[in-house]
Amino acid sequence: MRAYILTIGDEILIGQVTDTNAAHMATALSNEGVDVVEHLSVSDTRPAILDGLERALAKSDLVLMTGGLGPTKDDITKAVLAEYFATELVFHEPTWERLQALVRRFGREPNESHRVQCFLPAAAEILTNKRGTAPGMLFRKGRKMVVSMPGVPYEMRYLVGREVLPRLRTLLDSDGEPKLRSVTILTAGAGESVIAEQIAEIEASLPETMSLAYLPNLGTVRLRLSIRGRDDEAMEAELRKYRTRIEAVIGGIVYGYGNQNLAGATGEMLLEYGLTLGTVESCTGGRVAQLLTSNPGSSGYFHGSVISYDNRVKRDLLGVATDTLAEHGAVSEATVREMVRGGLKQLGTDVVVATSGIAGPGGGTEEKPVGTIWVAVGNQERIEAKLLRAGKDRERNITYTAFQALNLVRKFVSSTFRAN
Amino acid sequence: MRAYILTIGDEILIGQVTDTNAAHMATALSNEGVDVVEHLSVSDTRPAILDGLERALAKSDLVLMTGGLGPTKDDITKAVLAEYFATELVFHEPTWERLQALVRRFGREPNESHRVQCFLPAAAEILTNKRGTAPGMLFRKGRKMVVSMPGVPYEMRYLVGREVLPRLRTLLDSDGEPKLRSVTILTAGAGESVIAEQIAEIEASLPETMSLAYLPNLGTVRLRLSIRGRDDEAMEAELRKYRTRIEAVIGGIVYGYGNQNLAGATGEMLLEYGLTLGTVESCTGGRVAQLLTSNPGSSGYFHGSVISYDNRVKRDLLGVATDTLAEHGAVSEATVREMVRGGLKQLGTDVVVATSGIAGPGGGTEEKPVGTIWVAVGNQERIEAKLLRAGKDRERNITYTAFQALNLVRKFVSSTFRAN
Repeated sequence: MRAYILTIGDEILIGQVTDTNAAHMATALSNEGVDVVEHLSVSDTRPAILDGLERALAKSDLVLMTGGLGPTKDDITKAVLAEYFATELVFHEPTWERLQALVRRFGREPNESHRVQCFLPAAAEILTNKRGTAPGMLFRKGRKMVVSMPGVPYEMRYLVGREVLPRLRTLLDSDGEPKLRSVTILTAGAGESVIAEQIAEIEASLPETMSLAYLPNLGTVRLRLSIRGRDDEAMEAELRKYRTRIEAVIGGIVYGYGNQNLAGATGEMLLEYGLTLGTVESCTGGRVAQLLTSNPGSSGYFHGSVISYDNRVKRDLLGVATDTLAEHGAVSEATVREMVRGGLKQLGTDVVVATSGIAGPGGGTEEKPVGTIWVAVGNQERIEAKLLRAGKDRERNITYTAFQALNLVRKFVSSTFRAN
Repeated sequence: MRAYILTIGDEILIGQVTDTNAAHMATALSNEGVDVVEHLSVSDTRPAILDGLERALAKSDLVLMTGGLGPTKDDITKAVLAEYFATELVFHEPTWERLQALVRRFGREPNESHRVQCFLPAAAEILTNKRGTAPGMLFRKGRKMVVSMPGVPYEMRYLVGREVLPRLRTLLDSDGEPKLRSVTILTAGAGESVIAEQIAEIEASLPETMSLAYLPNLGTVRLRLSIRGRDDEAMEAELRKYRTRIEAVIGGIVYGYGNQNLAGATGEMLLEYGLTLGTVESCTGGRVAQLLTSNPGSSGYFHGSVISYDNRVKRDLLGVATDTLAEHGAVSEATVREMVRGGLKQLGTDVVVATSGIAGPGGGTEEKPVGTIWVAVGNQERIEAKLLRAGKDRERNITYTAFQALNLVRKFVSSTFRAN
């Protein structure tokens, strides 16, 4: 099965928004083994939408569209779809009832624009959108399907997950085509080429129905192991077998599976051991804390941070010795170790991770060029420090360091507490 | 002039990367008054690239392509372009010299794959890429132009800014078509509809050659005022005139112009007054600090933070009274004011901003539902607090609160120090 992603909206074409919807849909489809042949973004006009739809249906069996379903005058996707599928707009009572309840929950009364949203193409299967006003619509043309969804990211995500993927799986199961199953192994701390070398033998021994993809990103590498076949149980068994073989070799760098993020996985490990974490950040400027706290429930293990951007804060709040700063500089192993000690004292957590480095673009010297970064992690018993040599790009350096810091926490906790 | 954005790469179609290049190019083109008619992403294969290129040239006068120019076997854009424009690949000496120097700077020796990168289409104008190995290429077909650039975002940005836009401006100037000039006014603290109401009269009085666009995003609204014409000076004068009129009405919410970000603009204001800032963050978990420190040079005004995610940190490190926490709760005006006081003492900065709220999805109560958030800003003399009522989405709530906090700093500094 081949799929097509069609996103509609002038806001994309003038660069006002980055089209994150397309990446989300592409990932969801790829995970089901469906190939996305193209992604096209067109403007909010009848000819552009019609032309895009024609191209999409000519090149694929499943078209996922987003955008152009809101109540404003620019949103004409619905009318164009009704025209294309030669169907009328009829008033859809269940949508009207849901919409009235939704609007009244916010203490307002439904108005004319809400009523207009309830006129929906008669030929479409209506997909209930529990996250917003505009429902999704599913059209069928022979064996082909077109799904239209609102462009608001979290509404679209809801519809993809709850309405589109279940139907897609049923369709894939029923058509007798081989299915795709995959498992994604998440790793941090080794580069793509190092991993490839270590598991070269396993990779060479994969059966023809299986494949392994490397998806690297700033110090983390996702390994997606996929299999095509018809027998669910046999496929699961094969995936388990090769996953176990891979982990026997690179187990130390595996931090999770599937869609987990490194901060969330690190947090779950802390929870498991009943440990609390604090961060003491200089060059990352709060990025480690922000990655941790973007996960719901992070207050269960993350207690706080001191961001010591200025040396005065390193000295007065964290107790880094004036001599240490003068002798070794703020970006040094000695300083980052004292930052951990200060954090343990001031934040009162079981574990503290610290960062200090030159993120750039300014601040580099001959001896310590931009990209020189120290990270350290420790508890009351033991502190480990690591020197990173990153690149010249500030934003990349900050994110890379934050990932390295999280991974250092993960390894420290694992080696310290797993043994017990 | 109409433009087309063509991005190449399977990594986009499987959702491995979000296509931020497209948004960057779209913004750059829109700012020059060039309409982007479509954006198409195709796979790394000869037929897909050829088909995309045909469509792009049929629909536009200028095609910006990215991707498929690296040294790996998947990267075939260059060969396809040479085929399409019926030209040969010839060895390009200046690129080879640049490449050798670049590789040696990293202590390595140029290899065969570097040499291969220097074979470039004879018909192309070579655009020097000072950020990486693969150069850009510009092809002309009658009055139409095709520009191919590497997909690495910061290389592409360099080429767009330094090589593509200057040529585009020359072309637009020479073709006698009306040009577009615009100014973007950045505001924070009022919604789109409130602003629209306040400047309705000015908007209605705009001459036909001018237009005003509202670009809202989480509590900030960018206002883009554009004019079409042929006389640069007259256009600039008109833009100045209406900008001044708009600012006479909404000046209080304007934080900057053009591509500035709120954190950077706030930082520049602090620098101007010689003030230092610290943040004390609970629900934002480091997001305010992270927004500030993502700007180079932020160490000139940002000194540090205490992230007091846990109440123990609020109490022990910031000195928030146990009674205050017990009586009013962590999410309260009293607590957030004491957080500012504790931050001023511990961080030693001139100004401190604090946040405490329920970001969700858990933690809400009848009295304080998810989205209840307090922010406060102050110095030794005065503290101001504000209650926000945000939505249910954790990530949006965190970002929204961070923007509100930065804007509160901006207003506080402005009202306290501008008067002097």
